[in-house]
Amino acid sequence: MPASLKVGVIGLGRMGQLYTRLLATRITGVTLYAIAEIDTSARQRAVAEFSIPHACSEVEELLALPELDAVVIATPTSTHAELVKAAARAGKAIFCEKPLALTIEETQAVLDVVEQVQVPLQVGFMRRFDTAYQEAKALIAAGRIGEPVTFKAVSRDPFCPRREFSDPAKSGGLIMDMGIHDFDLARWLMGSEVERVTAEGTILVCKELAEVGDIDNAVVNLRFRNSALGNVEVSRNAFYGYDIRTEILGSEGALQIGRHQHTPLLLLTRAGAQHDVTPYLMERFGDAYHTQLQHFAQCLHDRVAPAVGGADALAACTIAVAATQAYQTGQRIDLAALAS
Amino acid sequence: MPASLKVGVIGLGRMGQLYTRLLATRITGVTLYAIAEIDTSARQRAVAEFSIPHACSEVEELLALPELDAVVIATPTSTHAELVKAAARAGKAIFCEKPLALTIEETQAVLDVVEQVQVPLQVGFMRRFDTAYQEAKALIAAGRIGEPVTFKAVSRDPFCPRREFSDPAKSGGLIMDMGIHDFDLARWLMGSEVERVTAEGTILVCKELAEVGDIDNAVVNLRFRNSALGNVEVSRNAFYGYDIRTEILGSEGALQIGRHQHTPLLLLTRAGAQHDVTPYLMERFGDAYHTQLQHFAQCLHDRVAPAVGGADALAACTIAVAATQAYQTGQRIDLAALAS
Amino acid sequence: MPASLKVGVIGLGRMGQLYTRLLATRITGVTLYAIAEIDTSARQRAVAEFSIPHACSEVEELLALPELDAVVIATPTSTHAELVKAAARAGKAIFCEKPLALTIEETQAVLDVVEQVQVPLQVGFMRRFDTAYQEAKALIAAGRIGEPVTFKAVSRDPFCPRREFSDPAKSGGLIMDMGIHDFDLARWLMGSEVERVTAEGTILVCKELAEVGDIDNAVVNLRFRNSALGNVEVSRNAFYGYDIRTEILGSEGALQIGRHQHTPLLLLTRAGAQHDVTPYLMERFGDAYHTQLQHFAQCLHDRVAPAVGGADALAACTIAVAATQAYQTGQRIDLAALAS
Amino acid sequence: MPASLKVGVIGLGRMGQLYTRLLATRITGVTLYAIAEIDTSARQRAVAEFSIPHACSEVEELLALPELDAVVIATPTSTHAELVKAAARAGKAIFCEKPLALTIEETQAVLDVVEQVQVPLQVGFMRRFDTAYQEAKALIAAGRIGEPVTFKAVSRDPFCPRREFSDPAKSGGLIMDMGIHDFDLARWLMGSEVERVTAEGTILVCKELAEVGDIDNAVVNLRFRNSALGNVEVSRNAFYGYDIRTEILGSEGALQIGRHQHTPLLLLTRAGAQHDVTPYLMERFGDAYHTQLQHFAQCLHDRVAPAVGGADALAACTIAVAATQAYQTGQRIDLAALAS
Repeated sequence: MPASLKVGVIGLGRMGQLYTRLLATRITGVTLYAIAEIDTSARQRAVAEFSIPHACSEVEELLALPELDAVVIATPTSTHAELVKAAARAGKAIFCEKPLALTIEETQAVLDVVEQVQVPLQVGFMRRFDTAYQEAKALIAAGRIGEPVTFKAVSRDPFCPRREFSDPAKSGGLIMDMGIHDFDLARWLMGSEVERVTAEGTILVCKELAEVGDIDNAVVNLRFRNSALGNVEVSRNAFYGYDIRTEILGSEGALQIGRHQHTPLLLLTRAGAQHDVTPYLMERFGDAYHTQLQHFAQCLHDRVAPAVGGADALAACTIAVAATQAYQTGQRIDLAALAS
Repeated sequence: MPASLKVGVIGLGRMGQLYTRLLATRITGVTLYAIAEIDTSARQRAVAEFSIPHACSEVEELLALPELDAVVIATPTSTHAELVKAAARAGKAIFCEKPLALTIEETQAVLDVVEQVQVPLQVGFMRRFDTAYQEAKALIAAGRIGEPVTFKAVSRDPFCPRREFSDPAKSGGLIMDMGIHDFDLARWLMGSEVERVTAEGTILVCKELAEVGDIDNAVVNLRFRNSALGNVEVSRNAFYGYDIRTEILGSEGALQIGRHQHTPLLLLTRAGAQHDVTPYLMERFGDAYHTQLQHFAQCLHDRVAPAVGGADALAACTIAVAATQAYQTGQRIDLAALAS
Repeated sequence: MPASLKVGVIGLGRMGQLYTRLLATRITGVTLYAIAEIDTSARQRAVAEFSIPHACSEVEELLALPELDAVVIATPTSTHAELVKAAARAGKAIFCEKPLALTIEETQAVLDVVEQVQVPLQVGFMRRFDTAYQEAKALIAAGRIGEPVTFKAVSRDPFCPRREFSDPAKSGGLIMDMGIHDFDLARWLMGSEVERVTAEGTILVCKELAEVGDIDNAVVNLRFRNSALGNVEVSRNAFYGYDIRTEILGSEGALQIGRHQHTPLLLLTRAGAQHDVTPYLMERFGDAYHTQLQHFAQCLHDRVAPAVGGADALAACTIAVAATQAYQTGQRIDLAALAS
Repeated sequence: MPASLKVGVIGLGRMGQLYTRLLATRITGVTLYAIAEIDTSARQRAVAEFSIPHACSEVEELLALPELDAVVIATPTSTHAELVKAAARAGKAIFCEKPLALTIEETQAVLDVVEQVQVPLQVGFMRRFDTAYQEAKALIAAGRIGEPVTFKAVSRDPFCPRREFSDPAKSGGLIMDMGIHDFDLARWLMGSEVERVTAEGTILVCKELAEVGDIDNAVVNLRFRNSALGNVEVSRNAFYGYDIRTEILGSEGALQIGRHQHTPLLLLTRAGAQHDVTPYLMERFGDAYHTQLQHFAQCLHDRVAPAVGGADALAACTIAVAATQAYQTGQRIDLAALAS
């Protein structure tokens, strides 16, 4: 990678801080050239730690930097669509946290703009870059489990969402918010598009979500175009830890990804054996966040499309919308009917 | 247990042979008093090995033995209903392999007869007697995982059914045949009845099942009356081994039952680590078969109703019928509509 | 196996009861023909349960039964040597619980008598018949881990010995009592004899053993004739459960046998994950006791020598004696010096 | 931590590069102020990547920088002693990779100089900073396993040492090179000093080590002053992966640290279940290297002595020397005799 790409980060929340640190210290072939953040102290802390040339309070200011090659969008979900469109129109390569938008229509509108101006776009489905999922994909491609038959996923968070993140109008609701990674993995690992879904949901633990019309647990059945099956379970109340497991049953074998033990320490007493569990997201997927950003930088250098683009965002969004409708109506939803 | 109960086994297939051996050698408080089996050589082998006083070729002959206290019915599923009714009318206590019958109507008809003559009836949901499930039930009752929120089950067999066992008219079809244990566990462990179901199914591996109108994989979503959720997956093509796992997510914790490693041997080479898997049903649940028969004997001695009776058989059958309909119609099925 | 062998059990303690039940109900090709036990009520209970033709209060009476083909000796260790010699002189085939005797000299004296009268002799090293160890032996023989380099063993009991079993004059002391199975496995799995040993021991938990001159923990280093290494750890104070693990590191891979989780149940709570451990010997090796007795019966039918004979007993005893001396003297002990 | 400490790295081999990157990007409260490395291109690569103010070809040049607060010594083992003494005399705080020196005398000489000039010294026993070992220490301190009774350690590398690293005069030989981390953990976790050792060693796989007089496998028995026991096994030929496990058996329970599965991916096929193993050191202990450097920086800021200092280096070195002698002579070695 000859010349270094100039990258700007938009938003310095939790994810923005992570991406800023990664770009400043661990991603090769890039220079952290600018940040845009409305909060002054957050902005100043980042500049002080990483000596960033351009610190902007407004996104427009950052997008107007003529030397800036690419942006990493890490703002709240509800702002993604407008920011991607603006960055695209400014001619910048774009990495955007998932999801692009919460509706099929809005996602399609974003893709239309990106298509028109032809800038690279990568969406933050970081699980695809996790070592275990990468190896799973390779084993499936090599035929080690025969033909994929059933996709199973569990995504459980160890806490109810804080009030400011609980509005389904902003989060997309439980199924969109927590299931979208699984819907993306489903398409990718099974090698087929989802054709139709059924779903059930409930609210039993995070009772405050009832006020905003959301639920805390759901199970979603999938059927793929190639007749394969799937089931995705999402939950807010795995208070024992962050629990992400994926399983692919094939015609000749199976793959399982995930484990409960976090550190390799086992305590044996008269009460039995005891070990810890994975406390947070970063403990499980820290390296994947690094790898996906490195992939983005490498694609820009190589002038090839990132492996996870706008069409993937649209497909996963469509499944999430369909599954939410299926739960709400009690009906089986054909995705073809939504995409029209 | 003062006097020994005289027990007869009806049918000497795989399960009948197992029950015969258990009654002859390991169940206390009983005497293996009679067998009924039409095949002469099978009958003679059993008599030779276990010195059984009465070896009958016809069931009627066995049921007519005045001293016989109880029967264990281990014949093909399609004969269960008539045999239970006959045994009940003969005044015998009854242990019957699951399921009692393949339809709600027929199951109800059996229960009506049993109710009328008031004989004890236990149905062979042996998983309830497995040490791990027993402990799981106790931990839930003790509140260790808070309120049960989601029930998950995987039941996978390591082979396609042989042709003589593949007729859905005799097996009840995939969901009934393989899911019925899970539907029973679901009710028992969650402490609530299933209210409605959705399901998806497919045939991708055991292609010969298409000829008889059956499928080889299915995923079934459950919703319980107390608003809890569930998902049951059944498959014929876990060629890596017999794979039974159950999971209960609660409001304060979770329980997982099942493991892949069969013997405690790990081989570590340059290719990674390797261990075996559970080859067959008996390797996983051998002890549970023993415990359930001992429970039956103990209940008869104590003159209390067995823990798993006819109402449990009816409830699990109803869920299986509803799930099969849900898959076939693509509709959500309310169980209340079926029970009418 | 045409005719049934007539077998007698000597001693109805814990092991004798187990062997009696196995011979009566699960070992094929044998008839439980006689028992010898001085305690009247224990004798009567066995006769009542299993309808045994000959119930003797004295061993001599049992050995004098002309039709008796074989004996299973399950009396206290200190009586083994005399009973084996008596049974041999009576021309009976012999299965004897380990160890044959507690000294090299006494063991050799037993072997001399057996050699002279040429009766079959099997010693109860039941771990060799465990499925996992059998598979380990086969994998080593197949070259899957290259040449065996280091043998590691852990044998831990979950309780201090009761006073009546704690006298080293009767048990042989900690290293003999608990290590002898490991010394036998070491020779068998490594395919080489032990040449020399060093050892350390201590008494820290079962303090009452100090009164009888025994210890509660020891670590023993082995060096084999083929230059391979080994380490055996034995402990009385694994109060978390019965913990038996064996490991063979080879030039191309490794094998590990053993696990902590007993039932496949995992409890996940805010406090972490928890599972049970193996409570007792029978939970881990129940099947191996069955298999070794079946092997004995089969060898008698086939007129071949059992796989685990007197020479194996002598070799394991010699290692145990050497290791105990090594601990007591602080010196490295060459086994050649002992065998003279 | 108000002002930033100026730190210099001496040596840019594998470990020096790691420490340079950590100091430049992840350790807070420090500035990477200088490097010393004789190789010009290595030096220039580091300067180019991390913008280091002072790049020296000679150590003397670096130690002469008046503003430099501390040094990190990451040169070959044989140079540690002289460099620590020189840095101490220059008044710099010192972090030195383990071991300080390969003999008791040389280590003592280093400590004498450090003692005289009173500079902070931390030695790179990074395992103490691993999350699992930290938690183990805390659980022992809290009495969760009662009194520690037996310490067990396995340290296995997945490759024979390359020729340039195989000279025992430079590495200290197998037991020193691979066991020193375990000897340090033994003292720390058991809370008692080692009193005496016995050992066995062999050369069976890395045959080229015979030319330089080293071995490839060893087992070392320990006895602590408080009568506790220990065993440490070291091996060069765990070709299946980097295998580090530690176990502490106590009077009331046990702790186990270590696992074989690296990524949480399980492949299930007809051949059984398969998963990967930990390929290299960094996959297992990457975070611990970070944490130990952060601890060093924090101690300097807080003006407290680092948790792992010169006395620890001397104690671990003494055990390693004793264990090597024990193997070579076949005698039990009392450490008191060596320390005189």
